[in-house]
Amino acid sequence: MGKSIAYKILEKNLLTGNLKAGNEISIKVNQTLTQDSTGTMVYLQLEAMKIKDIKTDLSVAYIDHNTLQTGFENADDHEFIKSAAAKYGIIYSKPGNGICHQLHLERFSRPGDVLIGSDSHTPTCGGVGMLSIGAGGLDVAIAMAKGYYYLKAPKVLNIELVGKLNPWVSAKDIILYILKTLSVKGGTGYIIEYSGEGLKELSVTDRATMANMGAELGATTSIFPSDEVTMDFLTRQGRKKDFVPLYADNDAVYDKKIKINLGDIKPMTAMPHSPDNVVEVSRLDNIKVDQVAIGSCTNSSYTDLMKVAKILKGRKVHEDVSLIISPGSSSILKMMSKNGALADLIESGARILEAACGPCIGMGQAPKSNGISLRTFNRNFKGRCGTKNAEVYLVSPETAAVSAITGYLTDPSTFGEMPAVEIPERFDVCGNYFIYPKEDRKDLEVVMGPNIKPFPVNRPLNENLKGKVLLKVGDNITTDDIMPSNAKLLPYRSNIPKLSEYCFGTLVDDFHLRAKKNGGGFIIGGENYGQGSSREHAALVPLYLGIKAVIAKSFARIHKANLINSGILPLAFKNKEDYELFDEMDDVEMNGIINALNQGAEIVLINKTKNKAVKLTFEGSKRDIEILKCGGYLNYAKYDRN
Amino acid sequence: MGKSIAYKILEKNLLTGNLKAGNEISIKVNQTLTQDSTGTMVYLQLEAMKIKDIKTDLSVAYIDHNTLQTGFENADDHEFIKSAAAKYGIIYSKPGNGICHQLHLERFSRPGDVLIGSDSHTPTCGGVGMLSIGAGGLDVAIAMAKGYYYLKAPKVLNIELVGKLNPWVSAKDIILYILKTLSVKGGTGYIIEYSGEGLKELSVTDRATMANMGAELGATTSIFPSDEVTMDFLTRQGRKKDFVPLYADNDAVYDKKIKINLGDIKPMTAMPHSPDNVVEVSRLDNIKVDQVAIGSCTNSSYTDLMKVAKILKGRKVHEDVSLIISPGSSSILKMMSKNGALADLIESGARILEAACGPCIGMGQAPKSNGISLRTFNRNFKGRCGTKNAEVYLVSPETAAVSAITGYLTDPSTFGEMPAVEIPERFDVCGNYFIYPKEDRKDLEVVMGPNIKPFPVNRPLNENLKGKVLLKVGDNITTDDIMPSNAKLLPYRSNIPKLSEYCFGTLVDDFHLRAKKNGGGFIIGGENYGQGSSREHAALVPLYLGIKAVIAKSFARIHKANLINSGILPLAFKNKEDYELFDEMDDVEMNGIINALNQGAEIVLINKTKNKAVKLTFEGSKRDIEILKCGGYLNYAKYDRN
Repeated sequence: MGKSIAYKILEKNLLTGNLKAGNEISIKVNQTLTQDSTGTMVYLQLEAMKIKDIKTDLSVAYIDHNTLQTGFENADDHEFIKSAAAKYGIIYSKPGNGICHQLHLERFSRPGDVLIGSDSHTPTCGGVGMLSIGAGGLDVAIAMAKGYYYLKAPKVLNIELVGKLNPWVSAKDIILYILKTLSVKGGTGYIIEYSGEGLKELSVTDRATMANMGAELGATTSIFPSDEVTMDFLTRQGRKKDFVPLYADNDAVYDKKIKINLGDIKPMTAMPHSPDNVVEVSRLDNIKVDQVAIGSCTNSSYTDLMKVAKILKGRKVHEDVSLIISPGSSSILKMMSKNGALADLIESGARILEAACGPCIGMGQAPKSNGISLRTFNRNFKGRCGTKNAEVYLVSPETAAVSAITGYLTDPSTFGEMPAVEIPERFDVCGNYFIYPKEDRKDLEVVMGPNIKPFPVNRPLNENLKGKVLLKVGDNITTDDIMPSNAKLLPYRSNIPKLSEYCFGTLVDDFHLRAKKNGGGFIIGGENYGQGSSREHAALVPLYLGIKAVIAKSFARIHKANLINSGILPLAFKNKEDYELFDEMDDVEMNGIINALNQGAEIVLINKTKNKAVKLTFEGSKRDIEILKCGGYLNYAKYDRN
Repeated sequence: MGKSIAYKILEKNLLTGNLKAGNEISIKVNQTLTQDSTGTMVYLQLEAMKIKDIKTDLSVAYIDHNTLQTGFENADDHEFIKSAAAKYGIIYSKPGNGICHQLHLERFSRPGDVLIGSDSHTPTCGGVGMLSIGAGGLDVAIAMAKGYYYLKAPKVLNIELVGKLNPWVSAKDIILYILKTLSVKGGTGYIIEYSGEGLKELSVTDRATMANMGAELGATTSIFPSDEVTMDFLTRQGRKKDFVPLYADNDAVYDKKIKINLGDIKPMTAMPHSPDNVVEVSRLDNIKVDQVAIGSCTNSSYTDLMKVAKILKGRKVHEDVSLIISPGSSSILKMMSKNGALADLIESGARILEAACGPCIGMGQAPKSNGISLRTFNRNFKGRCGTKNAEVYLVSPETAAVSAITGYLTDPSTFGEMPAVEIPERFDVCGNYFIYPKEDRKDLEVVMGPNIKPFPVNRPLNENLKGKVLLKVGDNITTDDIMPSNAKLLPYRSNIPKLSEYCFGTLVDDFHLRAKKNGGGFIIGGENYGQGSSREHAALVPLYLGIKAVIAKSFARIHKANLINSGILPLAFKNKEDYELFDEMDDVEMNGIINALNQGAEIVLINKTKNKAVKLTFEGSKRDIEILKCGGYLNYAKYDRN
């Protein structure tokens, strides 16, 4: 029976468990990455584990999120991460170097290896055939400390690409088309594995764009074969030695298969406020644009930005448009500087920002009130851009560039001949932004500024729990809703008490006060609770506020793991319609919880206010149960002898 | 009797008054500039005056301060200013174009003309022999609406430059040397006029650096001759037609003269926390640097940044240093992109920020806790960088670049041969960032977002005033102390009620509460009250909080004018030692104020708590008194028929 690429890698790296979809397994982790927003917490956790050396082949700590630095907090975080990297033998990437996923793809990605990263877009390196999984920060800390990662072996969804792309249609349009087809829940529980003759059309960075936005499908990760395109990419990056070929067997078995004809795809856009709210650009008329933002880990490669520069060359950004360009990496910025493309962008009237995540994570460039912003990014959740009533459309770099000229959302295929981009023989490497760990690292200590507060540690689980329903939310609540992320809040990622004041801030203003007044309590959720960013803080902050359980119709994978890691019970309604039986401020209780968990039995949730009782289920491994009983992964890891 | 350059221009533009130092005069204004931080208020005032067209030859509205945009407020301000510019016939400079003073120097400066700008570094254009004065926003609004500007004719201080500069010493070192010599009060009441054979050494942008930091001397402005160096600059900028020669008469009369031998000057630095706290760099030892920031209206010219790029070419930014470069204008960034210098900077590991004010105004890049930052900027007041306990040293671009490599504050003259910079035959112009007003402007309306609140209007002055001393401060209180400016607060420049919560925030936390509780009151100040930035908000916010008078030993010129414009009495102790007789929360009163002002008599301030009475004087013109009686310039302007 033939194997998929995904299962070949899982098998190669398998440590414990029976490799079959749905089983809990642990795998050896070859590489990790962190960014600074989640990273501070990761290194606080690593510090709490008192390890001497990391167990991975290579780990990198990137600074790309909190780069505006409007207070001392960001620079203190950078310094803390830099000192932790030096102490534990981790490569440190200075601010200005670029976006973690673009840089990791360029410099460190390896076909066939496993990468765990504390960012939901870690799957980007799936573009070279690396099994790259976004995880909670604690999972990444444990991956570095212990060398392993636990997961439920996913199913594999094969997407076969056939046919040829139309002019002006690119990777972003393909993944938007897939999002339209599958929805933001369509990838849940799956690794998405691409195959087919259509792959020849797609460069590694095109593939990376698609793997990147597999996160928006809810997929565990996405993966591409490692083929001659991959070898070409690694060779031009000066890393031919890192190439290994990797293909699925001809008779590979998949849990699900889809075939997509690339020729069917037109320029696409995801309309406000969800990445799967996708239509063809040509279907929308007369959308006047205030801002166009090009960049992010999705669309900031050399080819993407060169296409933009070629479209804008000799043309003028519309007077009513603010065109913002944030390059993916220092080496891209350098190459575009040398070859004149950057000069063309400046000549057109574009704003050139630092190579960093920037506006994609709401770090600056918030649009005006009720503004319309076209972005080549991956998410358009309400408020993520920093302006609550702004409307964000996700588009390809081609659509973005053409629309910046016309001032209206414009199908680029109406714009004449598509410019061709020539890929340089050898990519520039800007090595001076990387700090490599020294051989002798003894006596090195971490540096913690005054805004860096200890990791919040939960207490072991009680047999009985009671309290109030503090909040009831609908379907598809994102981690951006639970713990908003914007330029004002990002500096507090390492200060949970401060951050907690903004918990659920996109929905209600007083959640932290409700929690404090009632000594913690419960949250009732709908379907796909906790989708979106891998934000561990969406679990750590509720832990700090005394949330004991989230009871929902269903959970997003990473957030559920984060809840378990924090010692918060993620329980599902056995009958989804029972969701209707709860209102905010209802008094609820559960008894015999540990007993039920141990026996795999249902837990009864009693609504004392309404005098009703409903059944809840917990879906998780024995290990998950042990973690919950200990009050979280950090407590559990103390007893783990591996 | 020979004339100075300054008085030749004043005479040419004189509208009313007897042109003699100390007399109140009004002059015709040829050009105005605003930046976005002060500009929103300027255009709110212009709007309140219900004019149709501006009366200047040319006015420009730049966006360079609030460019991070961490909320909708900034983009709303940009939109408001853009719409006001379109309505009134003003040139609008889009964000990304660069810093107002650098751009104005490049594109619009004219020798012999008068420029009034709502930014204290407006004197930068003195580098081409333009009489360029920083003023309160209301003065700039009135300059546009009525075409005139009132001022007390200043004295003229001649600085004669002789000798030749040592290698590695540049304009920044000269002005720091002058600051060391004269102090931050040394220029008060003067226009500084440069002359001497040493001028040949100095390019227009060198001169602009010195004119720029004349603001730190407290000077009204600084001015250079318009000579062959000026013609060369304007020619390379494609503006030869704007050149007019302008020299002082050989027997020009000056109120004060200083001679400086350029050969005496070594690389200098202003130590924390004042621009006049200057020593030679070589006198400081072992200062480990965390951050180096290069840019600002003081040192972001093509030559400055090219020197930096040449020093860094083939070298590496020290691992412990964050090197930040913010170019002065889009055309500089474009030229450095085309000639490879930008690539050299990126290769070294520098962070490239947008062409804007950026970190100079605390808009991002706050250093770490207790961090040491070297900056090529103009001010190093405590907390201005965004980190209260950081230490900022002001240095030249050469010292900054060399120190970024060594990791320590380093005298660049120890660094071998100084690189030479060749000036391009013709400077690039990036015209696509400018929006020129249309011919037909009728029916255009301004666009006001929800964070833009009306201009606060004072009431006519009362004959008698009483209340509490809400705050007593020491000498040299800056407008940064009165109304702090940082990335968090800048978005609220057009929202006085919100901003008032941070008034005097560097000194006390509760000033606004004291003011509200007591229904307004009085401030007691020391010498040079209100020095530093021209920030009109340092008067508008106290006006909003009900401050009736500031009683101080002496006042900084621009801030005093702003207080009068806001209808707040700026009164001086007749005997400076009387300052000691007042404490916070003392009850004070003044009677017969209007009568005393009309008669030029002293005003008696009674301290009822201490049972003492002291004499105060008001120094100002009849017009100032009329403005105060009306309750501010806006009320007064309603009755002005000019």
